[in-house]
Amino acid sequence: MTSYLVGLIGSGVGPSLSPALHEREADHHGLRLLYRVIDIARLGLGAEAAGGLVRAAQRLGFTGLNITHPCKQTVIEHLDELSPDAEMLGAVNTVVFDGDRAIGHNTDWTGFAQSFARGLPDAPTHRVVQLGAGGAGAAVAHALLTLGADRVTLVDAEPARAVALAAELVRRFGAGRAGAATPDELPDLLPQADGLVHATPTGMAAHPGLPLPAALLRPELWVADVVYRPLETELLREARALGCRTLDGGGMVVFQAAHAFHLFTGREPDPQRMLSHLTDLITA
Amino acid sequence: MTSYLVGLIGSGVGPSLSPALHEREADHHGLRLLYRVIDIARLGLGAEAAGGLVRAAQRLGFTGLNITHPCKQTVIEHLDELSPDAEMLGAVNTVVFDGDRAIGHNTDWTGFAQSFARGLPDAPTHRVVQLGAGGAGAAVAHALLTLGADRVTLVDAEPARAVALAAELVRRFGAGRAGAATPDELPDLLPQADGLVHATPTGMAAHPGLPLPAALLRPELWVADVVYRPLETELLREARALGCRTLDGGGMVVFQAAHAFHLFTGREPDPQRMLSHLTDLITA
Repeated sequence: MTSYLVGLIGSGVGPSLSPALHEREADHHGLRLLYRVIDIARLGLGAEAAGGLVRAAQRLGFTGLNITHPCKQTVIEHLDELSPDAEMLGAVNTVVFDGDRAIGHNTDWTGFAQSFARGLPDAPTHRVVQLGAGGAGAAVAHALLTLGADRVTLVDAEPARAVALAAELVRRFGAGRAGAATPDELPDLLPQADGLVHATPTGMAAHPGLPLPAALLRPELWVADVVYRPLETELLREARALGCRTLDGGGMVVFQAAHAFHLFTGREPDPQRMLSHLTDLITA
Repeated sequence: MTSYLVGLIGSGVGPSLSPALHEREADHHGLRLLYRVIDIARLGLGAEAAGGLVRAAQRLGFTGLNITHPCKQTVIEHLDELSPDAEMLGAVNTVVFDGDRAIGHNTDWTGFAQSFARGLPDAPTHRVVQLGAGGAGAAVAHALLTLGADRVTLVDAEPARAVALAAELVRRFGAGRAGAATPDELPDLLPQADGLVHATPTGMAAHPGLPLPAALLRPELWVADVVYRPLETELLREARALGCRTLDGGGMVVFQAAHAFHLFTGREPDPQRMLSHLTDLITA
């Protein structure tokens, strides 16, 4: 009988919800699937170990792997092939073994794109302000521009990171589609924005708080958060209290997992079912 | 939820029935268990690769491993600890990971011992002739002597191998308990023997035939075979036709797997259920 062995390579991934999400969805399909968490921090390894772990997993019969921080870039040189998306983004979050070949994919950006299209349909995206230009930010901005946003302005505590990502997006999507700004420009940017995307760790249990002054929010602004633990961050709570349309981070997690599940198993998962499962897991 | 990831490292192990045996037994216990076959021949690796594969499996979250030919000895130097049985036999067929430690066990000899006690209860074992002094032969002879056989005479096409194993068994069990003989001595040995154990590959689908002349069998001799594919070898067919009590190789497989299953999961498997499953698998 075909069975599926998958795993997650990253640092500090012990508490990941991916094993539960993938394994329960597989159960609904009657598939034997086991999802292992491979925490390089616990193993005393650095990001550069990702390639060796991927090749070892291939030898030991893994079907594929998810890859997360800090290995999404370091793993690339050890793969045989990249999907066009992964190539363009320069980041891999999913590896599928096909015979002797290891193929890298990126389901982070599709995860955000699907979540956004489902959770904020018809939201105006003439001007979007995005907080955070790290790995998650790169995927999210790529998704917004792919979905047709006219301009995404990136704001990061490290200005150089925002400038670099904006330049990359302009190269990819065309002049004027992306720009960089500093946090002190937010009071000028937000009044003209349709929406705000938050892609930094602020609001997670370990980093409580608001990523910007609450006074900068207004009811006409839609607000999307990539943080999903908790699902209701302080940012979303403030925004909802004002009457903003909001999108929590659960959808991105579920849709990236659903896409990876499809790559691993060839089956069509049920994202709605996975979303209720994620909600149960987070609020349990 | 606890889950169990196990595997088998060996050469040419692609057709192994262990995945089916372990996975179905786990299903009966409601355990999520996945069993992967790691064929070093297919990977282009030699027996010396076993240690590296074991350590990689540990990093990647395996619960434990079965080890088979040609790695049962080579793996030992890479383990942290051996069970007393594995230490004594100098062969490991099961590795269990306990935190950072890799502990070697041997369930081959217990597998034969349990199968023999169950399938040939009260069989006389004053004098036993055993064909084959390789890895399986070492486990089987150890089992026979542990169960109380007075003397096991080892016969191997490579006489030096029989002599070496006999010397080792004498060291372990005492003077006179084991001896070595050559195939041309069988006509003298068998008339005085209570039983015959066959532990060479002859009779397997790839090595058809009889391991000794049929004329040497007689109804009073019990005959045990370690070959299990097919379950009814030519040797057992001839022996049964004469009216001998016989024991096929299925029991050893099942009891070694059942013991390993217990080491991996802590659960008590149902050997009778596993035996019917094995029979289904082999005759399917």
